[in-house]
Amino acid sequence: MTISREDVFDFLENYFNSSHFVDHFNFNPSNDHKYNQRYILNDQYALNNSPIFFYTGNEGDIQWFCENTGFVWEIAPKFSAVVVFAEHRYYGVSLPFGNDSFVDPNINYLTSEQALADYAYLIKFLKSDNPKLKNSPVIAFGGSYGGMLSAWFRMKYPNIITGAIAASAPIWQFVTECDAFQKVVTDSFKKSDSDCPDAIRSSWDVINEFSKTPKGLNDLQKIFKLCSPIKNAQDLKDWLADIYGNIAMANYPYETNFLAPLPAWPVKVMCKNITKSLNKTDPLNLLESIYSGINVFLNYTGQSKCFDIDTDTPFDINMVSWTYQTCTEFVFPMCSNGIDDMFEKQDWDIIEYNKDCFNQFKTIPRFEWPIIQYGGNQDDIKYHSNILFSNGDLDPWSAGGVLKDVNSKLQAVLIENGAHHLDLRESNAHDPDSVIYARLKEIDAIDTWIREYNLNFVLALKMASIQKDTVEN
Amino acid sequence: MTISREDVFDFLENYFNSSHFVDHFNFNPSNDHKYNQRYILNDQYALNNSPIFFYTGNEGDIQWFCENTGFVWEIAPKFSAVVVFAEHRYYGVSLPFGNDSFVDPNINYLTSEQALADYAYLIKFLKSDNPKLKNSPVIAFGGSYGGMLSAWFRMKYPNIITGAIAASAPIWQFVTECDAFQKVVTDSFKKSDSDCPDAIRSSWDVINEFSKTPKGLNDLQKIFKLCSPIKNAQDLKDWLADIYGNIAMANYPYETNFLAPLPAWPVKVMCKNITKSLNKTDPLNLLESIYSGINVFLNYTGQSKCFDIDTDTPFDINMVSWTYQTCTEFVFPMCSNGIDDMFEKQDWDIIEYNKDCFNQFKTIPRFEWPIIQYGGNQDDIKYHSNILFSNGDLDPWSAGGVLKDVNSKLQAVLIENGAHHLDLRESNAHDPDSVIYARLKEIDAIDTWIREYNLNFVLALKMASIQKDTVEN
Repeated sequence: MTISREDVFDFLENYFNSSHFVDHFNFNPSNDHKYNQRYILNDQYALNNSPIFFYTGNEGDIQWFCENTGFVWEIAPKFSAVVVFAEHRYYGVSLPFGNDSFVDPNINYLTSEQALADYAYLIKFLKSDNPKLKNSPVIAFGGSYGGMLSAWFRMKYPNIITGAIAASAPIWQFVTECDAFQKVVTDSFKKSDSDCPDAIRSSWDVINEFSKTPKGLNDLQKIFKLCSPIKNAQDLKDWLADIYGNIAMANYPYETNFLAPLPAWPVKVMCKNITKSLNKTDPLNLLESIYSGINVFLNYTGQSKCFDIDTDTPFDINMVSWTYQTCTEFVFPMCSNGIDDMFEKQDWDIIEYNKDCFNQFKTIPRFEWPIIQYGGNQDDIKYHSNILFSNGDLDPWSAGGVLKDVNSKLQAVLIENGAHHLDLRESNAHDPDSVIYARLKEIDAIDTWIREYNLNFVLALKMASIQKDTVEN
Repeated sequence: MTISREDVFDFLENYFNSSHFVDHFNFNPSNDHKYNQRYILNDQYALNNSPIFFYTGNEGDIQWFCENTGFVWEIAPKFSAVVVFAEHRYYGVSLPFGNDSFVDPNINYLTSEQALADYAYLIKFLKSDNPKLKNSPVIAFGGSYGGMLSAWFRMKYPNIITGAIAASAPIWQFVTECDAFQKVVTDSFKKSDSDCPDAIRSSWDVINEFSKTPKGLNDLQKIFKLCSPIKNAQDLKDWLADIYGNIAMANYPYETNFLAPLPAWPVKVMCKNITKSLNKTDPLNLLESIYSGINVFLNYTGQSKCFDIDTDTPFDINMVSWTYQTCTEFVFPMCSNGIDDMFEKQDWDIIEYNKDCFNQFKTIPRFEWPIIQYGGNQDDIKYHSNILFSNGDLDPWSAGGVLKDVNSKLQAVLIENGAHHLDLRESNAHDPDSVIYARLKEIDAIDTWIREYNLNFVLALKMASIQKDTVEN
């Protein structure tokens, strides 16, 4: 028995709100403001001590994650689990100051530490609200930033979280070589079509050449069907690079609608469009080929007439909130060298990065903080337990992930031909064996954690009863 | 070889400052204020990878803890350890806003989470500042609230702390029965002199009787040599109860100057003074006997002419800061029933408690927070490791401590005839065997943690070298 897609969508209506302190780490009496966090709850299978499957929402509307995390819904009935999807503060409708949430000083309560404390309070509330759940084990789930949160939740609150599935969670991206991400993107493209990376690599110079004259800029606008004129080559190149990264993340073996509506194996389709009538000696042909490729990402459904490189966020992220997070706690150094990857050489420019952050938010990122707070390598996390890290080898974010077992309590599973948290998606006839294996391993880990928890629980009850007998006799 | 008392006092001059964010948990651009944290450093024994012995300062001037933690100084040379005593923010001279630190909103950065983050940053700084310490293991030490901090430091930052000695750390005081503290005080008095608790228990009614008339209040002032007239019985009774609690904490087997200058086994001396010429049927005699008893605590050196029950803090705590902490994060429910303990019956009055906090700081304590943040029972902490909890059976704070092994990685040692963190004091000819054993157990634990750390470190180096060879060949 599984919960069908229709069931999931039914539950999308099951929104609840839980009231939390906006600031968990400060007792400022004038600042005991509370806000309503939205969460989705399905307790139709609840028995006594049913496990709670708790998705630690990430940088977007919780509905989006709920729809793209079929794995949790599929396995919940097997465990008689209660399913909760909690929305991250400052995303979706969980806005501590409503529409005024995104300006200083209101935005400054947007941190991962505050979000984890929200989740801890929410679980405490759920356990007190339903007597059946009073002694329930809690398994955290999350993908991407949500996976980082689920891992950190277990690390920082093992009193509340029994175990965590951290899918495609780049918890070490802060200290990973800055070109690692783009290398994986490139490898992923090469795997799909060996000629594709070269074509893309050649395109940057051509774009630079076009951009030298007003006519060339005008031509670029036409070739890439941009709604507005472009002012320089850089904006266009950044936009293209983002598209390549995003399509690599969503390179799933079947048609999906995660970051955009996409065909099966979209990188292959994109690359085929790029290389099929490619004439490298003809600059215009090269750019038109590139356009034909990215059109797979932008316009698979054929709805769009033109594209806006400034404002098009193809998915349901609140970019102001996420950019704020990358300008405070989460700096992921990024660069490319143009040799081992298909991108234009671009150094990691920390000064420019800081300047952009300061201009937008007046913040100065604290690069060292996540490493102090959460650790930056295998040695830093080795004392933790009950976290399973999964990564797909096609996923650029795997560069910052935990790819090898740290020890028997901190295991890793690498999904061959897997893109960004493929394992969290609902099962599909086109799933590679690797993801079927990963999901079985995840189910096994969850099962082990719950058994251990229940065993401990029974032992504790027995000890309490022995002590009671001793006192009474 | 040990460091002599004189050496320690030399090092009291070795004050350094480390600059920290006042707010680690908020990136408010207008609030990137930093402050100087004071710490004492002794690196005279530093070798490559010397362990760092890091005392997590608690609610007072760091010099006071430094002087009363001879154990750390005695064992440091054996481990070639670098010794650091870090002062807790808002105590001593580590005041984020100088003399203006104690008013709203400046005081609101006084939390245990902020203090732990300070310590984490300080260790990071020390390791970068001295190349010898780059890969050093770090052992946290602390007594009382400092012991809670050392335990929590290991729990929350196992990436930074290798192991922790948590002496007399009442980490579960938040959820302990409210009369447990006063029961231990009473047991401790009874153990010293079986007639003593009865005499003290009888005194409350007599004080109440005296306080009914202005003349009686005047007599009370004279009997207890108070500098100012008293307005009611309650202030006097609270003052006496505090003295009994404090002397129980400082009930050491030799002359000390911890909370006050005291003789060896001060509870015995106090009780002897109370009971030696006691005539229970004579109210005046009873109160004079009580006075003669508490005089041991107040005036062992014979310097004081009169006492001030409103402002006398007999030791080096900043009471505003500590009261703020008990009005925000740290609510220790306290009560007495007058039957199992020698105190007047007093219920735990949460409403009154909240009212007092609101009147003084406009804060509303968050009772649930430390339990969410740090856990409230054996089950909550069972996933942690490398913490040794020590408690003395004479110490009232043992009521909220971890008295039994949780598992092989979280051990406990109970010190018979031990008062408040006796084990952290320098060794003394009058030490009971129990504390000698406890210190050996602590040394053994530290040794094990450091060995494990070094073994891991060597293995990691070896793995890195194997990987390098593989890549090169």
